[in-house]
Amino acid sequence: MSGSSFGTIFRVTTWGESHGPGVGVVIDGCPAGLSLQAEDIQVFLDRRRPGQSKYTTKRNETDTVEILSGVFEGMTTGTPISLLIRNQDQRSKDYGNIATLFRPGHADYPFTEKYGFRDYRGGGRSSGRETIGRVAAGAVASLLLKELGITVRAYTKAIGPVTVEEKDYCYDHITQNSLYMPNNDAAEQAGKYITSLMAKCDSCGGIIECTADGLPVGLGEPVFDKLDALLAQAVMSVGAVKGVEIGEGFAASASVGSVNNDSFFSEPADTASDKGSSLTSKEDPRRLIHKKTNHAGGVLGGMSDGSRLILRAAVKPTSSIAQPQHTVDIHGNNTEIVIRGRHDPVIVPRAVVVVESMTALTLADLLLRNLASRMDNIKKVYN
Amino acid sequence: MSGSSFGTIFRVTTWGESHGPGVGVVIDGCPAGLSLQAEDIQVFLDRRRPGQSKYTTKRNETDTVEILSGVFEGMTTGTPISLLIRNQDQRSKDYGNIATLFRPGHADYPFTEKYGFRDYRGGGRSSGRETIGRVAAGAVASLLLKELGITVRAYTKAIGPVTVEEKDYCYDHITQNSLYMPNNDAAEQAGKYITSLMAKCDSCGGIIECTADGLPVGLGEPVFDKLDALLAQAVMSVGAVKGVEIGEGFAASASVGSVNNDSFFSEPADTASDKGSSLTSKEDPRRLIHKKTNHAGGVLGGMSDGSRLILRAAVKPTSSIAQPQHTVDIHGNNTEIVIRGRHDPVIVPRAVVVVESMTALTLADLLLRNLASRMDNIKKVYN
Amino acid sequence: MSGSSFGTIFRVTTWGESHGPGVGVVIDGCPAGLSLQAEDIQVFLDRRRPGQSKYTTKRNETDTVEILSGVFEGMTTGTPISLLIRNQDQRSKDYGNIATLFRPGHADYPFTEKYGFRDYRGGGRSSGRETIGRVAAGAVASLLLKELGITVRAYTKAIGPVTVEEKDYCYDHITQNSLYMPNNDAAEQAGKYITSLMAKCDSCGGIIECTADGLPVGLGEPVFDKLDALLAQAVMSVGAVKGVEIGEGFAASASVGSVNNDSFFSEPADTASDKGSSLTSKEDPRRLIHKKTNHAGGVLGGMSDGSRLILRAAVKPTSSIAQPQHTVDIHGNNTEIVIRGRHDPVIVPRAVVVVESMTALTLADLLLRNLASRMDNIKKVYN
Amino acid sequence: MSGSSFGTIFRVTTWGESHGPGVGVVIDGCPAGLSLQAEDIQVFLDRRRPGQSKYTTKRNETDTVEILSGVFEGMTTGTPISLLIRNQDQRSKDYGNIATLFRPGHADYPFTEKYGFRDYRGGGRSSGRETIGRVAAGAVASLLLKELGITVRAYTKAIGPVTVEEKDYCYDHITQNSLYMPNNDAAEQAGKYITSLMAKCDSCGGIIECTADGLPVGLGEPVFDKLDALLAQAVMSVGAVKGVEIGEGFAASASVGSVNNDSFFSEPADTASDKGSSLTSKEDPRRLIHKKTNHAGGVLGGMSDGSRLILRAAVKPTSSIAQPQHTVDIHGNNTEIVIRGRHDPVIVPRAVVVVESMTALTLADLLLRNLASRMDNIKKVYN
Repeated sequence: MSGSSFGTIFRVTTWGESHGPGVGVVIDGCPAGLSLQAEDIQVFLDRRRPGQSKYTTKRNETDTVEILSGVFEGMTTGTPISLLIRNQDQRSKDYGNIATLFRPGHADYPFTEKYGFRDYRGGGRSSGRETIGRVAAGAVASLLLKELGITVRAYTKAIGPVTVEEKDYCYDHITQNSLYMPNNDAAEQAGKYITSLMAKCDSCGGIIECTADGLPVGLGEPVFDKLDALLAQAVMSVGAVKGVEIGEGFAASASVGSVNNDSFFSEPADTASDKGSSLTSKEDPRRLIHKKTNHAGGVLGGMSDGSRLILRAAVKPTSSIAQPQHTVDIHGNNTEIVIRGRHDPVIVPRAVVVVESMTALTLADLLLRNLASRMDNIKKVYN
Repeated sequence: MSGSSFGTIFRVTTWGESHGPGVGVVIDGCPAGLSLQAEDIQVFLDRRRPGQSKYTTKRNETDTVEILSGVFEGMTTGTPISLLIRNQDQRSKDYGNIATLFRPGHADYPFTEKYGFRDYRGGGRSSGRETIGRVAAGAVASLLLKELGITVRAYTKAIGPVTVEEKDYCYDHITQNSLYMPNNDAAEQAGKYITSLMAKCDSCGGIIECTADGLPVGLGEPVFDKLDALLAQAVMSVGAVKGVEIGEGFAASASVGSVNNDSFFSEPADTASDKGSSLTSKEDPRRLIHKKTNHAGGVLGGMSDGSRLILRAAVKPTSSIAQPQHTVDIHGNNTEIVIRGRHDPVIVPRAVVVVESMTALTLADLLLRNLASRMDNIKKVYN
Repeated sequence: MSGSSFGTIFRVTTWGESHGPGVGVVIDGCPAGLSLQAEDIQVFLDRRRPGQSKYTTKRNETDTVEILSGVFEGMTTGTPISLLIRNQDQRSKDYGNIATLFRPGHADYPFTEKYGFRDYRGGGRSSGRETIGRVAAGAVASLLLKELGITVRAYTKAIGPVTVEEKDYCYDHITQNSLYMPNNDAAEQAGKYITSLMAKCDSCGGIIECTADGLPVGLGEPVFDKLDALLAQAVMSVGAVKGVEIGEGFAASASVGSVNNDSFFSEPADTASDKGSSLTSKEDPRRLIHKKTNHAGGVLGGMSDGSRLILRAAVKPTSSIAQPQHTVDIHGNNTEIVIRGRHDPVIVPRAVVVVESMTALTLADLLLRNLASRMDNIKKVYN
Repeated sequence: MSGSSFGTIFRVTTWGESHGPGVGVVIDGCPAGLSLQAEDIQVFLDRRRPGQSKYTTKRNETDTVEILSGVFEGMTTGTPISLLIRNQDQRSKDYGNIATLFRPGHADYPFTEKYGFRDYRGGGRSSGRETIGRVAAGAVASLLLKELGITVRAYTKAIGPVTVEEKDYCYDHITQNSLYMPNNDAAEQAGKYITSLMAKCDSCGGIIECTADGLPVGLGEPVFDKLDALLAQAVMSVGAVKGVEIGEGFAASASVGSVNNDSFFSEPADTASDKGSSLTSKEDPRRLIHKKTNHAGGVLGGMSDGSRLILRAAVKPTSSIAQPQHTVDIHGNNTEIVIRGRHDPVIVPRAVVVVESMTALTLADLLLRNLASRMDNIKKVYN
């Protein structure tokens, strides 16, 4: 339990570094009876694959997944699902010049202090390739959620200073531009911004937003494993993320209670709209309870409240830039570093599916944990 | 493991609700040989006690801690430390009118859905009193950190729109005003803002900042239990927190790599300043490695980097306001609610010590987990 | 997580030592909606209370439980249940002479090495009083199991050389003799044996057997958290237990496959007996599948198989004897020790309820973990 | 956390079934700086490989390990170590006739009930091949222990009725006979017994004993994660094990305190023998404390006491026998089964290295957990 596992029941353990034989993940606790094919996972992996646009690294890796266990005749068996993705394009020589230098913004220095030395090839375990295991497992979690009517969707809300306001969202656009922004015009503008930075050997960051619809009310375990708390851990654990917020987030800190509180409303079940933001009260199945506003982002008291779940992650600018930077070598000498190799000028587009995957993993686990919350649910299973 | 425990080695389990017999915490995994008195804990509890200023609820609870186990002759014994704080001022009648209503912004509705019913007295387990166990345990964690030369400090960076910029910080002021702001002028201005809201039966939120100095390099367990990831879970799990960020946080998403990267520098050990932001390279003990900027907030690759740790938490406005609000009752009927009783118009000042405690708990646990990272450290203990 | 917690979902954390203010337990993960009164727990605690017969220590402690949290209007709320039992009869002076000596057969020596010093009053955390928290939590687990039609029963199979063979079991007798043996004649014989040892200032051990009926098929999580594996941990963790076996246990090692294998049989459901050893096949609800023999003790492949669960625990003779024994003091000098005070000549009768409690805790947790094993069960809860 | 992981800090997660693409293990939490080559692991795997003698299955699998991550230039890096062993000799047709039958003594029936269906090829996850991951990880744990001067050794104490008494142990013999017995004469006798059973299409079990020398005093975490409790879980989780005992074990239940207690003795350090059963008192480094007897098997109060650790596991007879047996099919019909294929008439010899591996894994984890037990040890690392 040294940090490579996430989840309590639906529990994933990732392994692997950028320039070793491969990367992978073991999913323990996936229920039996879920239809699963390698292609279901491949779709997710292809979304984070490099080489897809002019804004991503030109490394060409197919990242093909192999299911090593836990699936029999196309169904999960309840036993651990082991997924392997071999590393292919390992141009170690690109990284030779950084073996003895601490790259600014990277994990090199604390890694060396923590473990006494480090695998200096391409970032090793701190490489972005580490997220492949997360995405492969997130694909499985997403299939499980889908079976229960839950959908998770992430997209790029901002690239550097180019932000898409909610009123301008066109969800269809997300898959129409290579930046995964919900507005093609904004994406074009952002593309120009990135191009201008590339010319200066510089990089930028952005904001990823992720939503989930169809959640049952009550997911999240008070008090430390609240839905928002585990989402914060899940998303902040992604390499370049420096901030996480739910619903209004930081803006709520400057609001007032009379505005920020979301009132509850109910309506007869037969006239209610079928939107994700309304749901049946188990107290009275004839009436639907919902909120007309959603400053809370779908989380109250650390539990899902039936409204759309909304979270945002702040992604820092790519640390690997080709400009000369001041740094120190492993012997403590002041020096300069120039990072060569093929690096994304912005990792936001490729991180979108990673944030979506971490959200799916968190939700899948909390769904399974929540099964034990009430005696009446337990009796449904055992009687 | 239904959500009431936090930490892997230094592991706390809190229990208790606002109107039961008491609240408390069990700390399992505190090392033996730490000097600990009830007074050490009481100092922390007094910082979150109600009734301290005109901006906090007038409930008068002394919140006296009793050490039930784990301490012998003033020293921790290595066995679980059980801490009990009896509830005293339980005016249940204040809450009678909310037994059948879902308060906007509160956990009432999801709690009822999750568990089938709820303890409606004063919020039950979702009450702010739940944080007492966190603070009592945080006091013990802080003592452990202090023994290793680490200090954690939290304060109020913003109340509603009143923000203190870093250039205006006067750390001495923090304990001089009842809002725990690092600038007395800002505190006065914020006080006026709160007073104006109280007149309108409204409430506000704010931002808490927390720092830690003296951390060894390398705390945090890649990849899911990164320092920043666990801090995000820890802090987001505090009741009203809606966002967490590290270092530049959300602002980093709009920066560029050439600005946001912090360069490394080294200097001969004998001329180096003794500041927390510089530290000895174990590779070459004669030179100190440090960063002159700290956009990263002391975290690189999910590990401490030797610079000051900086995090911020966004706190939403208090949900309990005396204005009439629209809501639904437990039978699904539309209705109005007026929340009476004694509530803080802003919980930020009392939450400062809670955020500090959660930070201390996270750091103490990661310090102990990090003991096993290198064979040479292990041999130091066993040889 | 330094060893004071047990269970994954139904998770208990015990705390407390013999001569501190009290002992207790926090149960996190008990489902909401279970009827629970202090008296339900008290019944279990009374079964392990000292002073009940001439074969148990004459210390007189009522061991009254107080429910501090997690129960509202007689029902569990889903939040942590904190239980407190104050220590009463603390004659510390009885233990004064052992403060500087390592008692043979006790934890004194390794405790001192592990933690650097120890609470020498009455064994501290290694005292038998530590089991009070287990029994209090076991009472709650037993209530949960009872709701699902599962009964757990422990009794004394052997005291020293006096063993009751299965053919001589009279289950009614268990509560008719103070040794909890399923045969009053054997109990009388065992009583004489104990009396003879007491005259010689000596002590003895015995064997506790525990059964569970009514278990659904499939409890236990392959491969490390098998039903028998977790039961082995649970029972071996009780102070004086030196061996655990399931079904035939050690005798199976000298048997042959053709004898030790239990054949499966089925019969039409309408003619089937209603015994715990037969159960409905979910594949064909019209037929019951059962085993006519039960060498396996109800566990196949680490999962419950529908037959009666049977385990046995070997309990060593009480280590505290009044005979002079050779030992060493904390300064390393050879010396002699005479243990005064009031000690049980055999702890087996009082440990019966402890073994039963640990079995109940293990089963309750595995029942909740098993909820997530199949997609069809999950859909029963969420649809 | 559905049962495929073991350990808290040195934590292993195994995966894989007998007839899938392969089996493997991920070790998370192995300290950095341990020398590790594939050959170190291969030596352990070869000890459990089939086809080594006339008493083991004739399946011929080389079971070659591939290190996929966590090792750089021959040293562990502190990141997860992923080990893969491809399945080779998958004669699925041998198992075709058991797809619809529940084999007596096997996990088929509860597996089907738990998960709704099962991978019927060769036992799937319940196959003995599952232990390959344990042994591969156990090899790494053993290397870690060796670095700290600890040696673990397992051997066959009994095959069916043929038992080697401690007085007849010749440790050199263990590797001289194919049954791994510490006495070649007994091994020859046992061989004849096995041959006679093979002629009758029958099988037998036996007893495995495992010892560890060189343990520091104080390993084990009171109260649920005691050394003996975790060993009991670890060893009982191995497929065919039905009982576990420590030291005198079940025999202690019929002993008396004056005999079963082990007295402590001390002697000046310079004259002390260098045996594993004596060790330095940290209280007074000039004197060695030891026990002259070891009924406790090296465990007092759930912690190592400096004497040799001794445990025994009872292994049931192989369930797969070629005799016709009565059983039930998956439709609930009574029928007969004849198990063909290549099965070990006794699995004890191949399980020896599995028990040794589980012991090593338990000890390695408790060694790392124990690092945090005392403030003075922590200061050794951080100061």
